[in-house]
Amino acid sequence: MSRKVTVLGAGLVGSLLSIFLAKRGYKVEAFEGRPDLRKSDISAGRSINLALSHRGIKALNALGLNEEVKERCIPMPGRMIHDLEGSLDFHPYGKEGQFINSVSRGGLNELLLDEAEKAGVTIHFNHKCNDVNYRTTEAHFHSPEGEKAVSSDFIFGADGAFSALRNSFMRGERFNYEQHYITAGYKELHIPPTENGEFAIDPNALHIWPRGKFMLIALPNLDKSFTVTLFLPFEGETSFESLPNDEAVLAFFNKEFADAVPLMPELLHDFNNNPTSGLVTVRCYPWTRGNCTLIGDAAHAIVPFYGQGMNAGFEDCHVLDQLLGEHGELSTELLKKYQELRKPDAEAIADLALYNFIEMRDKVADPKFILQKKIEKRLNELFPEQWLPLYPMVTFSDLRYSEALEIGRKQQQIMNKVMEYPGIEVAWENLDFESIVNQL
Amino acid sequence: MSRKVTVLGAGLVGSLLSIFLAKRGYKVEAFEGRPDLRKSDISAGRSINLALSHRGIKALNALGLNEEVKERCIPMPGRMIHDLEGSLDFHPYGKEGQFINSVSRGGLNELLLDEAEKAGVTIHFNHKCNDVNYRTTEAHFHSPEGEKAVSSDFIFGADGAFSALRNSFMRGERFNYEQHYITAGYKELHIPPTENGEFAIDPNALHIWPRGKFMLIALPNLDKSFTVTLFLPFEGETSFESLPNDEAVLAFFNKEFADAVPLMPELLHDFNNNPTSGLVTVRCYPWTRGNCTLIGDAAHAIVPFYGQGMNAGFEDCHVLDQLLGEHGELSTELLKKYQELRKPDAEAIADLALYNFIEMRDKVADPKFILQKKIEKRLNELFPEQWLPLYPMVTFSDLRYSEALEIGRKQQQIMNKVMEYPGIEVAWENLDFESIVNQL
Repeated sequence: MSRKVTVLGAGLVGSLLSIFLAKRGYKVEAFEGRPDLRKSDISAGRSINLALSHRGIKALNALGLNEEVKERCIPMPGRMIHDLEGSLDFHPYGKEGQFINSVSRGGLNELLLDEAEKAGVTIHFNHKCNDVNYRTTEAHFHSPEGEKAVSSDFIFGADGAFSALRNSFMRGERFNYEQHYITAGYKELHIPPTENGEFAIDPNALHIWPRGKFMLIALPNLDKSFTVTLFLPFEGETSFESLPNDEAVLAFFNKEFADAVPLMPELLHDFNNNPTSGLVTVRCYPWTRGNCTLIGDAAHAIVPFYGQGMNAGFEDCHVLDQLLGEHGELSTELLKKYQELRKPDAEAIADLALYNFIEMRDKVADPKFILQKKIEKRLNELFPEQWLPLYPMVTFSDLRYSEALEIGRKQQQIMNKVMEYPGIEVAWENLDFESIVNQL
Repeated sequence: MSRKVTVLGAGLVGSLLSIFLAKRGYKVEAFEGRPDLRKSDISAGRSINLALSHRGIKALNALGLNEEVKERCIPMPGRMIHDLEGSLDFHPYGKEGQFINSVSRGGLNELLLDEAEKAGVTIHFNHKCNDVNYRTTEAHFHSPEGEKAVSSDFIFGADGAFSALRNSFMRGERFNYEQHYITAGYKELHIPPTENGEFAIDPNALHIWPRGKFMLIALPNLDKSFTVTLFLPFEGETSFESLPNDEAVLAFFNKEFADAVPLMPELLHDFNNNPTSGLVTVRCYPWTRGNCTLIGDAAHAIVPFYGQGMNAGFEDCHVLDQLLGEHGELSTELLKKYQELRKPDAEAIADLALYNFIEMRDKVADPKFILQKKIEKRLNELFPEQWLPLYPMVTFSDLRYSEALEIGRKQQQIMNKVMEYPGIEVAWENLDFESIVNQL
């Protein structure tokens, strides 16, 4: 008899997980608080596009979704830096042929919902989970048909940063939990296609306007528009608080992002109507109580600056599926293995994502930082097996996040010394690259 | 017209705060989820005795409660260390005449409830707060008379480690929150008076059986019994989990606490019937939203190892009262001042309390640690203005916790070097004490 699994949440991670489990023979029912986004005109969540990269793609490919996903992707092989004068500078993320992908949250979610149903998953929409008893594996929902209680053998909380399953753990014994907001928030804006129906700026790049304590970014969409996001402190000298009216907003944009302003005819409308949202990191443990387990953002919500939130959640599902391949079937023991294996990686990517805000908003505009990246690129070309820079390690490799963080820290220590060599700016090509690599 | 204040919780901090506010002319109503402990036979909370020291006493004295409190106190001028053979070693906490006090949580709470009512506070028992709207300053209660909503000008959450006000902040925007459990838990046990009605061991000490990763402690009660607490990891080689039956419990106690076993005739009964509880540190911020403020454990629950939980909560109330003295009256601004002033001290005592577990369970039995304390005591005798060791700084002084922690760290750095002197064990009296003090 196939065992019954309840998945809370049919967002990106919930639907992907449901497919993996259905393919392993489980009877999966997924419950989503929101309406079916394939049938209703709702936004798919807190941001409308995302960066899909190697780890996420690998999980999707394990389910044979290569082609379907590819159609929805716009490759971004590097960052396009916009300086105050509007000059552009392109920094590749990795080697020739390596790129991350701009993908629509809604489009990808629709694909995964379709695939989940094809795999035999039953999806209940408009079912808001309001309580879980993790001891009895019973979940309670508020639905259009009234209150429902659902019993199953296993429950997965793929229900995001404000997870109902996690709340039930919070009310239980000895649950370690932290939610921490950074001082900056974000607001989404929009660059529409040009009058000729073309992309207004280069679509094959992640555009960044780095300005020290704040930044603007833009990612391309399939409809030839860009989703623009302003990251700015909530309070302080230059902040959302310091922009109380249209004049202040326009003056700020004209000063800081002059080349972007003409591309955003609806700037003021978007600024005034779109919400200003916080950016939270959630860390907790254990992820598993009995046969109930947290996965994706519910276990480890992270800030978006490494473009790894969805990828980390997809990798969770893939890691769990691989454990199922090795050990046969879901059990309390297997779920414990999953959390023990995965927790250090979740901690690592949370730290990396926090750090990357500083890199994106500030360092990418720093000549010393750019030089360091250049030297590291050379090290990688000369010693491809020994020196892989941190960003490609996280983004394009299979290395565990925790190992990538560890190696990245060692590399940074070595590079700190290298960058102190007198005259490094002109003499860097004459460095003894081999001796640098040998310090690793 | 006097303004209306709602205080959530009429435990130690809630009742003390209510008195302070009533004396400042506010119309105070306190709401307590439990029955009136003066009229019912209930335990007063998670532990039955507490260490009251300078900071707590100072707050009580500010309300003129000196004599009433003194009657309820048993002075403990130092630690009595019990080694494996049952030999005793007494370590004073401070100078001659300095002591902490063992006090019954219930007894002190009863006194404060009486005093609150005398001061004009209305106390509603059996009123469980289930929701607070911090924007409208409205609190909702479940009471024997049904659901009630109470509006007021200000709300204080003195409702402990699982605060309802804090939960309402959690559901709001950008609230930073952390709850962290240490790996050890605790269980209360009991040493009754002797057959002659006397204390079974010296009542004027805090007794410790330090055993490395775990410990037993005992504090005297006015009825000549002792409350004994076992602190032990939940899991692992020697842990609550490793003591599944009476035989294992007895073997463990006979091996580790042999001199205490004959004093606890009800050991097995207590061990099997008393709960095993976790030890949590709660850190959060902001404490204040509009006119609603967290205070005491609700703002900063800490582990009990510095004996400062209640003292810190009482100092919160005293600090707030002093701000009222300076600035006139409660306001959003004043509450912000309170949280900004007090948050660093709450962080400091949380860290100190975590550290002190290691000191109590392990270091107090280490000859090198004992020697360091001896040298610091001499430094203090020679230079009383310049060198006050950390424990008395925290326990017997008015220095802010955050300053004490800072100075304590500097002292520890200096002492680390001092303790490395070759032959320090025999030569310590010949140290150049003045040059040590001058490093501060």
